[in-house]
Amino acid sequence: MSFELTILGSSSALPTSNRFPTAHLLKVDERFFLIDCGEGTQIRLRQLKINPSRIHHIFISHLHGDHVFGLFGLLSSMGMMGREVPVNLYGPGRIKEMMEQHLGYFGPLPFEIRYHSPGKKKNNLIYEDEKLTVTTVPLKHRTRTYGYLFREKQRLLNLRKEQVQEFRPGIADMVRIKRGEDFITSDGRVIPNRMLTYPPYHQRSYAYISDTLYDPGLAEQIRGVDLLFHEATFAGNDEQLARKTMHSTSRQAAALAKQAGAGRLLIGHFSSRYRDLSRLVEEAREIFPETDGVNDGDRYSVPLERVAPD
Amino acid sequence: MSFELTILGSSSALPTSNRFPTAHLLKVDERFFLIDCGEGTQIRLRQLKINPSRIHHIFISHLHGDHVFGLFGLLSSMGMMGREVPVNLYGPGRIKEMMEQHLGYFGPLPFEIRYHSPGKKKNNLIYEDEKLTVTTVPLKHRTRTYGYLFREKQRLLNLRKEQVQEFRPGIADMVRIKRGEDFITSDGRVIPNRMLTYPPYHQRSYAYISDTLYDPGLAEQIRGVDLLFHEATFAGNDEQLARKTMHSTSRQAAALAKQAGAGRLLIGHFSSRYRDLSRLVEEAREIFPETDGVNDGDRYSVPLERVAPD
Repeated sequence: MSFELTILGSSSALPTSNRFPTAHLLKVDERFFLIDCGEGTQIRLRQLKINPSRIHHIFISHLHGDHVFGLFGLLSSMGMMGREVPVNLYGPGRIKEMMEQHLGYFGPLPFEIRYHSPGKKKNNLIYEDEKLTVTTVPLKHRTRTYGYLFREKQRLLNLRKEQVQEFRPGIADMVRIKRGEDFITSDGRVIPNRMLTYPPYHQRSYAYISDTLYDPGLAEQIRGVDLLFHEATFAGNDEQLARKTMHSTSRQAAALAKQAGAGRLLIGHFSSRYRDLSRLVEEAREIFPETDGVNDGDRYSVPLERVAPD
Repeated sequence: MSFELTILGSSSALPTSNRFPTAHLLKVDERFFLIDCGEGTQIRLRQLKINPSRIHHIFISHLHGDHVFGLFGLLSSMGMMGREVPVNLYGPGRIKEMMEQHLGYFGPLPFEIRYHSPGKKKNNLIYEDEKLTVTTVPLKHRTRTYGYLFREKQRLLNLRKEQVQEFRPGIADMVRIKRGEDFITSDGRVIPNRMLTYPPYHQRSYAYISDTLYDPGLAEQIRGVDLLFHEATFAGNDEQLARKTMHSTSRQAAALAKQAGAGRLLIGHFSSRYRDLSRLVEEAREIFPETDGVNDGDRYSVPLERVAPD
């Protein structure tokens, strides 16, 4: 029942001695989702004792090297480790052509890469399983760039055994109750669902927003997200530089977190120009106190909580 | 007057938590020569506080990912750091086409890459400056692969001032004496060069041999080398596997060092299958005692020494 984010790399374009280029790993129950794959991602995975073979889905935000150059080594190592099951690769359409040309020199791989291009629409559903959906959040950067929103589906409700025994619904009715419907007894009485079930679990969510010009329009797409990563390449006094390079400041990241009503903001993708990053974090906290600056290896869990009853 | 090798990455194909894929850096006086460039090379350079801008010559042994995948990030970062001077890239001919296709997606770079393909010949001179030559040592691997031999040129000799003052040679004669010639006085006396100069400095050398099937024929090409790096992917009892994959065991590396009369043997490119590498080092030392197993970050200097007088 985990919903845990691990920061594999937290630098922007230029790595530093302790910050690798961007890569995040989201674990939802026992499934791993890799989000961006900067140089050295496979090394960070090994350092954190995460087996790369467990990754089946890789989401790429955009085709800039600091978000992609780890793919070559990671996929190659997966092949050398004997992988046979496909890897699903989500990202801008050109990634397919780029990878195929690359593999013309360094391939072939013993497994299939399945490419998924999200297109231009907002909130495009690009991944779905029984527990989770992933939708796209188009960003404003120098090349086609996607943010990704990971959100748990509504889980089936747990029945309150004592109450259910009292009303003795049939199997079909039980399924309906677990889905949230009220129960109607044979004599026509309506039993409210909340009398028969525990309060539902909150649907946990994580939004990954990197790289982008500050865009207040994103707030609506990620409204109420539990955990928001938003790039913060620059400090407040470098806002012009942020605009010119189509990046954000930590204050802008915080403003978006506030507008979206996020639970917690994580900032990263820091420019290597800042020796002391506490300034960027402080500037964000003035606007959105629940902000952390991330480091390689950091882990953030969203706990599984029942929605408070009315 | 330094001649110093730094190990940036010492793993073979699969990196481990503390071994990055292959990369070596040779510093001769104040010039840096990068040899192979596995994933994470630019990160190791930063960790060791070596400015990538100081690298102008990169020698690639072969186009397998664990020797090449760091090039993309390193060259990209050099560009972002504002580099304008060319980078010279030495390696198999296909590297040019591969890089150009890659840069079609992630480039262009603000500096020129000058490609140098060594061809198939032994001892092919591919680099020369006033102090150093680099020649090729063709290897036997699954794709075209080059070893590289770095050797200092004979330095000009230093004059023994007192003696020179006695014979008062002209400027042209002084240059000849510094080059090693005897001096003939105006009255026809032959003054042996060794009376006029200090003994010459030893010409320091480093041979990089990775990846290759064990090939005793290499000994002749690297005869008397001071520092020999030879891949040792496997332990002695995996010799068949070494042959099948066209790699070497640590014993074979040691045998070559012995045959070549090397000063010191460094082994690396270890398979990630061995938890305890001391076995590989011990097996090599039984044959060639002056063997070290290398780790990322290790440094080896060859001191500048005068050749012992006759």
